[in-house]
Amino acid sequence: MRIDIITVLPELIKSPFEASILKRAIEKGLVEVHFHNLRDYTTNNYKTIDDYQFGGGAGMVMMIEPIDKCITHLKSQRDYDELIYMTPDGERFDQGIANKLSLSKNIIILCGHYKGVDQRVRDHFITREISIGDYVLSGGELGAAVLCDAVIRLIPGVLNDETSALTDSFQDNLLAPPVYTRPADYKGWKVPEVLLSGNFPKIEKWREEEAFKRTKDRRPDLLEE
Amino acid sequence: MRIDIITVLPELIKSPFEASILKRAIEKGLVEVHFHNLRDYTTNNYKTIDDYQFGGGAGMVMMIEPIDKCITHLKSQRDYDELIYMTPDGERFDQGIANKLSLSKNIIILCGHYKGVDQRVRDHFITREISIGDYVLSGGELGAAVLCDAVIRLIPGVLNDETSALTDSFQDNLLAPPVYTRPADYKGWKVPEVLLSGNFPKIEKWREEEAFKRTKDRRPDLLEE
Repeated sequence: MRIDIITVLPELIKSPFEASILKRAIEKGLVEVHFHNLRDYTTNNYKTIDDYQFGGGAGMVMMIEPIDKCITHLKSQRDYDELIYMTPDGERFDQGIANKLSLSKNIIILCGHYKGVDQRVRDHFITREISIGDYVLSGGELGAAVLCDAVIRLIPGVLNDETSALTDSFQDNLLAPPVYTRPADYKGWKVPEVLLSGNFPKIEKWREEEAFKRTKDRRPDLLEE
Repeated sequence: MRIDIITVLPELIKSPFEASILKRAIEKGLVEVHFHNLRDYTTNNYKTIDDYQFGGGAGMVMMIEPIDKCITHLKSQRDYDELIYMTPDGERFDQGIANKLSLSKNIIILCGHYKGVDQRVRDHFITREISIGDYVLSGGELGAAVLCDAVIRLIPGVLNDETSALTDSFQDNLLAPPVYTRPADYKGWKVPEVLLSGNFPKIEKWREEEAFKRTKDRRPDLLEE
């Protein structure tokens, strides 16, 4: 899988890709992530990528021309499955979208900044608009990092223990049950006895019940789907 | 405002705080962000912070002891408004929570990793569990960065143009209207004429209608609230 990230702030988004699971996935060659600095696609001397919005109002808007140049350059080299724009008014990202995107070959992610991109970019270049949640961020970079993390960890071979991702929250519309590790007694706070019993069918049953209980308490909407 | 972030991967989460708006907010002294490496609070030679889960199963669990030590150390120095644990089964983060958290004085954010933290940490130390969305990430670090970004930009003085945050999506339960910038005609793709009219009441009306239309199309749930 290859991911091209278009941003005005490549330095902001780099560290998540240089540590832990994403770093290992890149080192293993399971995914390629390329950052493209939009300023490299400007034609004016000041490397301007934004301008005031038509009609007035606070906040700058990212111009169409450098984005067009960057996207056109990338598309001339390979085909892309999706050209994603990170925006709070996009389709809400969830585990199902992550699962599907993890099967892509090449994707482009465009990170908005300031007030966002000129609407014509969205109308003419973007194939999918995604939001990571109902809140506003300084830019699309963190959203892109979140999307990449959620997607890349699903690529076979990325996680050391593949069964681990399958028992995560959301993969079966249930939240994960509580987990415990040593010591069994910490300052008088004890681990549930069943987990120490060695009776695996009973442990499995307990986990299912706890997952269901937690989902019913916290996210009854997941059970209705 | 002071934010203490407890993590096993401080290097993963650093770059978003070293660029753009978060960097400026820190430099201006409007917010302090401190990273605490959980391994500095281990007592064993191997600096182990995780262990196998009781009852068997894939994935490691973060141990209670180093977390207890780190939290106890921080709490001995100041009072905290909230001790937040980033977890996919937490309360879903939204703009309303961001607005409220931006009024806090001191908060701790604990980033889970692997299968999450020992349940006793959640039962005895955590005051609030927050999820940035219905998807699973490698760890809580990106969630913490997202939460910090959404919250910090709301602190007065952080954004250059404060009215800018008020017209963002979600602040009035409406998505933002389309935005355009120069050129007015790009390869035949034109900016809506009304925005070039200089008739500001008319522009305002167009923006309201577009915001409403976009919200009705994309997120009718926001209009029902």
